[in-house]
Amino acid sequence: MKIYLAGPDVFLPDAVEIGRRKVAICDRHGLIGLYPLDNTVDLASPDASRQIFHGNEAMMDDACAIIANLTPFRGPGADAGTVYELGYMAGSGKLCFGYCNDPAVYAERTRRFTSVSEQDGRLVDADGLTVEDFGLPDNLMMIHALDLHGSPLVLPRERPADVWHDLSAFEECVKLAAQQLGAES
Amino acid sequence: MKIYLAGPDVFLPDAVEIGRRKVAICDRHGLIGLYPLDNTVDLASPDASRQIFHGNEAMMDDACAIIANLTPFRGPGADAGTVYELGYMAGSGKLCFGYCNDPAVYAERTRRFTSVSEQDGRLVDADGLTVEDFGLPDNLMMIHALDLHGSPLVLPRERPADVWHDLSAFEECVKLAAQQLGAES
Repeated sequence: MKIYLAGPDVFLPDAVEIGRRKVAICDRHGLIGLYPLDNTVDLASPDASRQIFHGNEAMMDDACAIIANLTPFRGPGADAGTVYELGYMAGSGKLCFGYCNDPAVYAERTRRFTSVSEQDGRLVDADGLTVEDFGLPDNLMMIHALDLHGSPLVLPRERPADVWHDLSAFEECVKLAAQQLGAES
Repeated sequence: MKIYLAGPDVFLPDAVEIGRRKVAICDRHGLIGLYPLDNTVDLASPDASRQIFHGNEAMMDDACAIIANLTPFRGPGADAGTVYELGYMAGSGKLCFGYCNDPAVYAERTRRFTSVSEQDGRLVDADGLTVEDFGLPDNLMMIHALDLHGSPLVLPRERPADVWHDLSAFEECVKLAAQQLGAES
């Protein structure tokens, strides 16, 4: 029972250590966690980014489910690479799980980065672009994809002090995945 | 030959008009463009966001390809909903095309939103998170997904004056799609 561990965790200074912790939690629940940094990549090669892509895609093809860390990354919403991978797994018919260590709704998150105002009955940002206002934590495509293709987004009741290292919501996802995959040890 | 038209265009004040222009361009090249706003949704319903999701997913399942507008949206990278849809189509084995009306590389785009510095041989943002530095315009997963599952990202030589209404790069994608799908009229 292999499960792909997607997230901007790979961009943390202690990315390797976080991966080890995540894989250990999977192991405790009878699952094999596949973490992108476990792929061998020659970072000095001009072809490095393509090697990373192919390694990640092979891992996803090998896994029967994904756990996506959708904690806001460099803006109001989730990391694009992670979101791409969630979509890829949904499209592949695999089980989708996700968590986010910031329970704020999307409009509230957007207010941290730009002014948000009401115009002709819709919320807009400083550029006049609509701000999604459905009371969801992020773009509706990801949120409802989880509802339909796996299990609803896991959110902590309150934002943990360290959003990048608190793995409680991640462990909830692992438990859900183990149940749905029948892997409970 | 139906093609799904993904993008943050749906968040523009003239979202419906942009959709009409995109569908007309597809038509000129022998393709049927499916635009999310053509779905019927009761926006007053508490279930509106789910209706939008199901409408979009049904359109994607009905299409044989996607053209994703990956122009940076509310941050240094592409819109999350669009990226999810690109992943979904790649995972479904459909042909993937994409364009972006900002040719700047990702590290340069990130500098517009946060300080970027070098630390232990890698670029990091103000929070100490790695900034991808492969000379690509956005996260490597999307960029190489296009290379592998359709055609490389289409970029204008220079950023057009109006990134949201200039459809030259979009039309390039339509031509590529029509060629690959054998739909040239």
